[in-house]
Amino acid sequence: MLWEDVSVLDPSTQRPAVGIRDVAALARVSPTTVSNVLSGNRRVSAATRERVHWAIDQLGYRPNLSARNLRVRRAGLIAVAVPEIGVPYFAELIGHVVQAARERDYTVLIDQTEGRLEAERFVLSGMNPGMVDGILFSPLGIERVEYENRRDSTPLVLLGERISGGGVDHVAIDNVAAAADATRYLIERGGRRIAAIGHQEREGGGTAPQRTRGYRQALDAAGMSYDPGLVVPTSKYHRRDGALAMAALLDRGTRPDAVFCYSDLVALGAIHTLRERGLRVPEDVAVIGIDDIDEGRYSTPTLTTITPDKVAIARTALELLFDRIADGSREPRQIVVPHSLTVRRSA
Amino acid sequence: MLWEDVSVLDPSTQRPAVGIRDVAALARVSPTTVSNVLSGNRRVSAATRERVHWAIDQLGYRPNLSARNLRVRRAGLIAVAVPEIGVPYFAELIGHVVQAARERDYTVLIDQTEGRLEAERFVLSGMNPGMVDGILFSPLGIERVEYENRRDSTPLVLLGERISGGGVDHVAIDNVAAAADATRYLIERGGRRIAAIGHQEREGGGTAPQRTRGYRQALDAAGMSYDPGLVVPTSKYHRRDGALAMAALLDRGTRPDAVFCYSDLVALGAIHTLRERGLRVPEDVAVIGIDDIDEGRYSTPTLTTITPDKVAIARTALELLFDRIADGSREPRQIVVPHSLTVRRSA
Repeated sequence: MLWEDVSVLDPSTQRPAVGIRDVAALARVSPTTVSNVLSGNRRVSAATRERVHWAIDQLGYRPNLSARNLRVRRAGLIAVAVPEIGVPYFAELIGHVVQAARERDYTVLIDQTEGRLEAERFVLSGMNPGMVDGILFSPLGIERVEYENRRDSTPLVLLGERISGGGVDHVAIDNVAAAADATRYLIERGGRRIAAIGHQEREGGGTAPQRTRGYRQALDAAGMSYDPGLVVPTSKYHRRDGALAMAALLDRGTRPDAVFCYSDLVALGAIHTLRERGLRVPEDVAVIGIDDIDEGRYSTPTLTTITPDKVAIARTALELLFDRIADGSREPRQIVVPHSLTVRRSA
Repeated sequence: MLWEDVSVLDPSTQRPAVGIRDVAALARVSPTTVSNVLSGNRRVSAATRERVHWAIDQLGYRPNLSARNLRVRRAGLIAVAVPEIGVPYFAELIGHVVQAARERDYTVLIDQTEGRLEAERFVLSGMNPGMVDGILFSPLGIERVEYENRRDSTPLVLLGERISGGGVDHVAIDNVAAAADATRYLIERGGRRIAAIGHQEREGGGTAPQRTRGYRQALDAAGMSYDPGLVVPTSKYHRRDGALAMAALLDRGTRPDAVFCYSDLVALGAIHTLRERGLRVPEDVAVIGIDDIDEGRYSTPTLTTITPDKVAIARTALELLFDRIADGSREPRQIVVPHSLTVRRSA
């Protein structure tokens, strides 16, 4: 089929919009060839494709997106941008994304932003022009307003809780419920002084405040009082942060009988400190994490944790992204993916 | 300066080589503009740059590379291609690459090949044309002949031992010496039945056979005999592989007093099995790994290991890559990066 080419006025300039015939004329090919390039037809030579894309860029041509499933500039690549690939949760999630993308014949490139604004803005700008067909983005530092004002049109789906609300395709677990489930489990197995490690104050919400909210909800529901002295903030979620936070709690004479950690790495760091101090896990202090990373299946003791369905997160995010690639104007969707409790030996 | 444009014959066609003036004519710009684009002058508009690159591609123009430090198509991106980012050694190495690249104003994209030939060939082909300025590549499945016959000219530096020898820029530790150091340490602390977990037979050598060689060298040097029954191959180097290999050893009645594991993850898996079976580490069985990943600083017990200088690997590889970007014709170099022994509690 030939792409639709209705003569309309560009709403911003009130001049006739650029059409497929203009592109064809500049690229010195037939309109059918332009259409073939736009639909990703592989029979068009690389040189011709390049020329057509050049003409499209020159003219600022935007194909009619009512024709679904047709893509401009199929690069065969999508990007996943995360704060740190050294965090196993992200590495495992990306592994699932790579597998699911391969089924669709897409290659995945990964970008590590370290939460730096400059790097996150590079992601929001679509990275280099035309380089990738879409982006999965787990933001950390950037404010929602920047997302909403972005000028690039590269399809984008957000992962996690940092920026939520309307206007954005978005996939995450219910972090309030996940934290409440973890805390309730600690209460059910006898915890009475339950610490929480990993709180973070951030403008505009985010994952950590939601987990603190879930922790408090579970305490409330059990009629237990909230003790701010048992809540330890950490700036990051590495093993070291968990180890230092646990040491800080013990050093100020606070001895919890259970600890809810905001990530598995934090939990593994906390367990390290507890054992260094001669405390038994779970007999003296029970420890639970969130993430269900592979490490927790082999640690001593093995780690009880909240298991987000990482396969579902990866597949759902990719589906949203491919939908968005096919139809840039559809309504944004926010999808909540299930989680479950995985009981091993640390709690 | 204007790029050199000597009229020479193309050696393959014996026709006059394409010159900068041909490119300028096709792109409808001045030769100076082409030169500015080639030298990465940012004052040229994006549209003009695109047009010049299109003309370069159309004509197959190759600028005279005797002018050093000038780059064609500086994308500001380099790629790092590794088998699995879920393997902490790679994730940590990439973290160092990202940091070092940022100092040079480069963004790093990561590609996970899973060792699949198709994915590794995509890397060898330079990924999408012009997308990245250079590639760091840790190959797994591909044969050396494919590297040597590759037609793409994207600068490439190899990491690790899989493909070594002439013709390739290459950075690695001395894997024979590293394995010998680990084994010698186990001997010095009293090991007499020393198992090795992680051997792999591969065409054309590679990391695993080199580590087995180092293990045997150390046994020889101590006058100890080599027992093939103590060497357990694994197909991968995950925790699970170490756990299963250790279980297989114990199940056939073999009880080593020390184990040299070919990666830290393998060692952590082996420790998991030993503790599940009620054996004490290091009192009953001492365990040493290679990689020095963060996890081994927090595991129970903490992990004794061989520490490759990952910062040096990352920085050296990037330096080779930027050298290669500046001068595609310089002689390939093979660089060996130091390693050291880090003693913690598992051995």
